[in-house]
Amino acid sequence: MRVYDCIKKKRDGGKLSAAEIEHIVTGAANESIPDYQLAAFLMAVYIRGMDDEETGDYTRAMMHSGDVFDLSAIDPKTVDKHSTGGVGDKISLILAPSVAAGGAIVPMMSGRGLGHTGGTLDKLEAIPGYRVGLSSEEFMEALKKIGVAIIGQTGRLAPADKKLYALRDVTATISSIPLITGSIMGKKLAAGPASIVMDVKWGSGTFMRTVADARALAASLTAAAKHMGRSVTCYITDMNQPLGFMIGNMLEILEVIDCLHGRGPADIMELTRAQAGSMLVFAGKAKTYDEGCAIFDRVIADGSAFNKFCDMVAFQGGDAGYVRDPAKFRRAEKRIAVPAAADGYINTMDGTSIGISAIYLGGGREKSEDIIDHAVGIEIVKKCGDAVKKGETIAWMHANPASRLDEAMAKYQSAIDIKSKPPEKLPLIVEWMSST
Amino acid sequence: MRVYDCIKKKRDGGKLSAAEIEHIVTGAANESIPDYQLAAFLMAVYIRGMDDEETGDYTRAMMHSGDVFDLSAIDPKTVDKHSTGGVGDKISLILAPSVAAGGAIVPMMSGRGLGHTGGTLDKLEAIPGYRVGLSSEEFMEALKKIGVAIIGQTGRLAPADKKLYALRDVTATISSIPLITGSIMGKKLAAGPASIVMDVKWGSGTFMRTVADARALAASLTAAAKHMGRSVTCYITDMNQPLGFMIGNMLEILEVIDCLHGRGPADIMELTRAQAGSMLVFAGKAKTYDEGCAIFDRVIADGSAFNKFCDMVAFQGGDAGYVRDPAKFRRAEKRIAVPAAADGYINTMDGTSIGISAIYLGGGREKSEDIIDHAVGIEIVKKCGDAVKKGETIAWMHANPASRLDEAMAKYQSAIDIKSKPPEKLPLIVEWMSST
Repeated sequence: MRVYDCIKKKRDGGKLSAAEIEHIVTGAANESIPDYQLAAFLMAVYIRGMDDEETGDYTRAMMHSGDVFDLSAIDPKTVDKHSTGGVGDKISLILAPSVAAGGAIVPMMSGRGLGHTGGTLDKLEAIPGYRVGLSSEEFMEALKKIGVAIIGQTGRLAPADKKLYALRDVTATISSIPLITGSIMGKKLAAGPASIVMDVKWGSGTFMRTVADARALAASLTAAAKHMGRSVTCYITDMNQPLGFMIGNMLEILEVIDCLHGRGPADIMELTRAQAGSMLVFAGKAKTYDEGCAIFDRVIADGSAFNKFCDMVAFQGGDAGYVRDPAKFRRAEKRIAVPAAADGYINTMDGTSIGISAIYLGGGREKSEDIIDHAVGIEIVKKCGDAVKKGETIAWMHANPASRLDEAMAKYQSAIDIKSKPPEKLPLIVEWMSST
Repeated sequence: MRVYDCIKKKRDGGKLSAAEIEHIVTGAANESIPDYQLAAFLMAVYIRGMDDEETGDYTRAMMHSGDVFDLSAIDPKTVDKHSTGGVGDKISLILAPSVAAGGAIVPMMSGRGLGHTGGTLDKLEAIPGYRVGLSSEEFMEALKKIGVAIIGQTGRLAPADKKLYALRDVTATISSIPLITGSIMGKKLAAGPASIVMDVKWGSGTFMRTVADARALAASLTAAAKHMGRSVTCYITDMNQPLGFMIGNMLEILEVIDCLHGRGPADIMELTRAQAGSMLVFAGKAKTYDEGCAIFDRVIADGSAFNKFCDMVAFQGGDAGYVRDPAKFRRAEKRIAVPAAADGYINTMDGTSIGISAIYLGGGREKSEDIIDHAVGIEIVKKCGDAVKKGETIAWMHANPASRLDEAMAKYQSAIDIKSKPPEKLPLIVEWMSST
């Protein structure tokens, strides 16, 4: 088999066989195919597309391009969750311990933030001592003892994705549905879960700017999972404004703690509850979605989800004392009000600009080597649909001396569009679809 | 300007500006753009195409990516010819001295053969002593003294083409009309001619397998030339069988000598005469095409074209004694008949297979470092439409001890399709189009 012929076939819109796709993905992982051939292939796939079967084969090849964790000895029904990313998205941090408190095993390998979206690992590191870098053995032990661990990637997972993603990033081939599907799900499945709940975001803070785009990605993810014989449920959810009110690593942990105590913002609680319902069905701990949601309500009400979070933090070296007494967290030095620029109703909140505002404060990364200040961030007061008077506080900037406060303020202002009439209310959960 | 944005624009089918195209071509020439970005760009261009304006801008950028010869001091109306290549195509060797004998200045930079098509330089090197590697100064001197020189590339002509062609070759992006146009014409114009006659071949021995394909390339070449304000005439001509009867470097030189004496095969004489007519008009030596053709007839009849060829050979170090007395050429050791496999009419002659047959004899290159035996080759006896009896000689193999004779014979047989009825006769010159 020649790479050249695979490129040529896709260039002309042909359908690649499983063997051809595996040949290319394996060649990407072991660096036997030169970058220029991979780049030409990626552009051909970007423009010509792949059907569900090809996408499934691509995802399988990505998954098997490196280590594949086998968690069946711990539990045959492990379940994980993945979000395509957004601003203020701290759902995983509430969801994982809640579902584990409901009896499921949740092996969660997560990522760091880059650009305007935050990262789950960065948020956890706001808790003093928390180690995201567990070894494979520690990860297994955590799953056995606690039922949940949230860690960075361990082992050599989907090395083909690392290679291909880096190339896509510089060849304008990121925003391809089949390539995104293979990248997201190949790596996620290599980490070992039997099933996955996916949260596909649409809106201003995401890659998918319309519901139609998000639906296309969700359809590709579920169809590819089906072709692979894997259980995946994809939620399509709104990310046209931040989730909850807190943005910034420590501030988001505070909000997570509130949620685990059952007193979190309605949007976060609604979304977490729904995804917990689906995950508990996948894990075999609930017969129906409604039963799963009821379990979530119970573990929040009786404190077991909160305790599970504390146990996880402690196992991973974090000081659970901070979680039990959030007053211990060191706050940013300044808390500055952001005033409304006009009378009216908040119409839109541009997620990308809000994320960049947080970066200016020092709470995110422009480059992967940037160091994050966990204490800084944005405390939102007014969200979409809220009435505001000119000069009224719409948010608070939590800033430290190194923050580029003026730029952050200006960027936040630019993100907020105030109109004279209230906007149409968007549904938080648009729809979901399942491979099974 | 970012390469990324140029790739993205073309990926989405957008139209690139002259500045964007120049940015990429310059970056290819000076190696400032990595191969993977160039490869992604080439694939995007392959699939999305470029319009005539973009193709003209691309061609201009290719031309100016390295040295550009200025021949205006010698003659403001220098004229060159380029063929897209075929089997037995020795037209340039007759055309260049004929047109020079008619008073034009013909600065011809030519190439070597690779794969099934022969190269003009290889043919000339069958003449003992002929040097294709003139310096720029010697080239200029030849043009001033003789009016014609046929040499290999001198100077750093169109380095972007060298880079991009090598990438296209391994990324399945060769057969793109705008990329071919930029590659052919950019390099050709850098060599300094004021105008060019292009011979776009269609048929079994070429890249353009149909008249429609050849017409598309010819249209692209003329439109791009028009956009650049350059004078180009494109002929679309038949290459479904070899031109003339000789294949192999020395054998083709013998046929060239016959043609220059006015006793060459009809197809070669017809095509050379037509292109000479066009070139002499471009050179300002004839007012009309017919007048140009009449000049060709005269320089052939009075021996001045032949003498010009001898002068050129001598200037470039070759022994013109061989040209004046072709019996001096050392022949191959064996001359073996190829018999017809059946009764009937020769229906098709596959150019690619015939070219490969000549390679088996040792007369061509599979790899660029292969050494050529100038004496071997194929002397065709029967061509398309000729009636044959089974066992009758359809060609002679001129072979030396190192020839892979059995393979060459078998390959030649496989190229010849004999049917019970004569085939439709194809026109040698299908049509021509001009940028002016």
